Amino acid sequence: MDMIHIESVKYDGTKIILLDQTKLPLEEVYLEIETLKELWDAIFELKVRGAPAIGIAAAYGVALGASQLTETDYASFFVKYEEISNYLASSRPTAVNLFWALGRMKKTLVDNKNISIPEIKQILHNEADAIKKDDAKICASIGQYGLTLLQDGMTLLTHCNAGGIATAKYGTALAPIYLAKERGMDIKVFADETRPLLQGARLTTWELMKAGVDVTLITDSMAAMVMQQGKVDAVIVGCDRIAANGDTANKIGTYGLAVLAQKHNIPFYVASPLSTIDMETSTGAEIPIEERSATEITHSFGKQTAPDGVKVFNPAFDVTPNDLITAIITEKGIIQAPYSENLKTLFV
Amino acid sequence: MDMIHIESVKYDGTKIILLDQTKLPLEEVYLEIETLKELWDAIFELKVRGAPAIGIAAAYGVALGASQLTETDYASFFVKYEEISNYLASSRPTAVNLFWALGRMKKTLVDNKNISIPEIKQILHNEADAIKKDDAKICASIGQYGLTLLQDGMTLLTHCNAGGIATAKYGTALAPIYLAKERGMDIKVFADETRPLLQGARLTTWELMKAGVDVTLITDSMAAMVMQQGKVDAVIVGCDRIAANGDTANKIGTYGLAVLAQKHNIPFYVASPLSTIDMETSTGAEIPIEERSATEITHSFGKQTAPDGVKVFNPAFDVTPNDLITAIITEKGIIQAPYSENLKTLFV
Repeated sequence: MDMIHIESVKYDGTKIILLDQTKLPLEEVYLEIETLKELWDAIFELKVRGAPAIGIAAAYGVALGASQLTETDYASFFVKYEEISNYLASSRPTAVNLFWALGRMKKTLVDNKNISIPEIKQILHNEADAIKKDDAKICASIGQYGLTLLQDGMTLLTHCNAGGIATAKYGTALAPIYLAKERGMDIKVFADETRPLLQGARLTTWELMKAGVDVTLITDSMAAMVMQQGKVDAVIVGCDRIAANGDTANKIGTYGLAVLAQKHNIPFYVASPLSTIDMETSTGAEIPIEERSATEITHSFGKQTAPDGVKVFNPAFDVTPNDLITAIITEKGIIQAPYSENLKTLFV
Repeated sequence: MDMIHIESVKYDGTKIILLDQTKLPLEEVYLEIETLKELWDAIFELKVRGAPAIGIAAAYGVALGASQLTETDYASFFVKYEEISNYLASSRPTAVNLFWALGRMKKTLVDNKNISIPEIKQILHNEADAIKKDDAKICASIGQYGLTLLQDGMTLLTHCNAGGIATAKYGTALAPIYLAKERGMDIKVFADETRPLLQGARLTTWELMKAGVDVTLITDSMAAMVMQQGKVDAVIVGCDRIAANGDTANKIGTYGLAVLAQKHNIPFYVASPLSTIDMETSTGAEIPIEERSATEITHSFGKQTAPDGVKVFNPAFDVTPNDLITAIITEKGIIQAPYSENLKTLFV
């Protein structure tokens, strides 16, 4: 069958078109973003989410913001550009792809300082397009490498959504599954619902079902039992940031899954583009963990489900130490321990 | 301070008064139950829940049903009584307290076969009252023993609700916490929200806050991180059935917590009245695990949060193997491994 691929981030030179992931799975709504404030809010409110998709959206964001500047000399254009870039950088502190994409865009700006402002604006647009195209290639490559770890008939468990809509195409954790499906392999998936925001229930099941992949939804608390029953052959997740030693920040709940996978002798794979590996961060202890609003937990389903005034702890991410990770699947190949040594080889 | 204790199950001889736990924490509603069908539904729909509270409700149920029988001879009264008892037994297959309470009621009936039917009806009512009173004593005793495992300043993590409203009074897992509070000790609690039905978010936080206990709500997927950060000194949970070898069935998610506790060298305690220990069941493999409706996950709180037609796996319980349990706290003392030997001593 032909697979259905959704484009979650597009840009036409005057507006950014975003699939509103908070409306899924009931409605497939596309937002037309014309201001930086709207984009900042969309990133902060997770309307666009997934580390690579956030990077793409931010790249388009600076391209959009730059296109609207009226400055005509490079020096004052650069000052305004920096303001735009810093503003967008503040939307999600844990997402390293955001900084990576903004860095790549800024390098493009600096590299082209001797041409006219209108030309610079066009080059920034082109560069954001290139970031998106590159991401699709990167995801396809992650899928190819990941596929070598799979066998026909396997059942995988995944957490949150590291799928096509979190990237330009294919996703990261889901890329090997899509490639397996394209080759007619029978791969089944357990999707953790992923509290508090239910990205697994709302997004992963939605896109896997669209692609005809056999997916079963469970609550996060059921992962241990399905592993105990021998129903899971491997865990595969995406990530928000990998430190130089392999410690991995990903959606809250990932660390627990890694512990459970170890207990049940199940391989635990992290799928990651190089842009998510942050060699400037030595260990997971240095990764800032965003804490989000209590109402994500107390009022999740359009209804208050906890007492007024209850204390809540709501970290958006946790850190899985490198020793629980069987392999990191990148677009340049599969990396295993010792990560401090082996991750370096990706960047030479 | 004086603690507030809620009575979740009462009986006045013509109706059973149940705290509707599905309406908490927003509304404190009491149902007046006058028919067995209403009671069966209330148990099935978890309006009354918690193994001991279900047992008490079932005991009052047979007392109520018996009070409404018009048979005047023991033989035909007995046949009708059996129908009532079997009907109520079918409401929740995993809850051994249900069978235990119905067994105790039936023994009362059989022991009194030589007295008049009106007298039997009164004796059944009295016996159900006695089951409730005994439960309050049992919970207080579990609390006393559990208290010996706690120290001032500790933080406990609990799952689901094994509190006062799940029993006649004090609860099982929460009993040591209430007793600690009465003595002025500073015990803090993390409450797992407990998907899919959020008993932790709705019930445990509610009753602990009423009692002035410092409680912090987290999603189930955050338990691993708070343990990793060293914030948890012990895990304490209730249970729905304990097999003769100590394997313990409890709310889905408990097994995962036990694995995580082991990984972090945190003691894992199960609080259990003797009525929940089923010496007829040799291991956890024999405990039937109730699977519940997919809509509990896909439509939890009045809103659809997963695609139409998604496959769902929704087991209500999991089984924690005995080797992950540091101790079982009963009303007759604290039991440790080897459980197959030591649980027997409770019943001699």
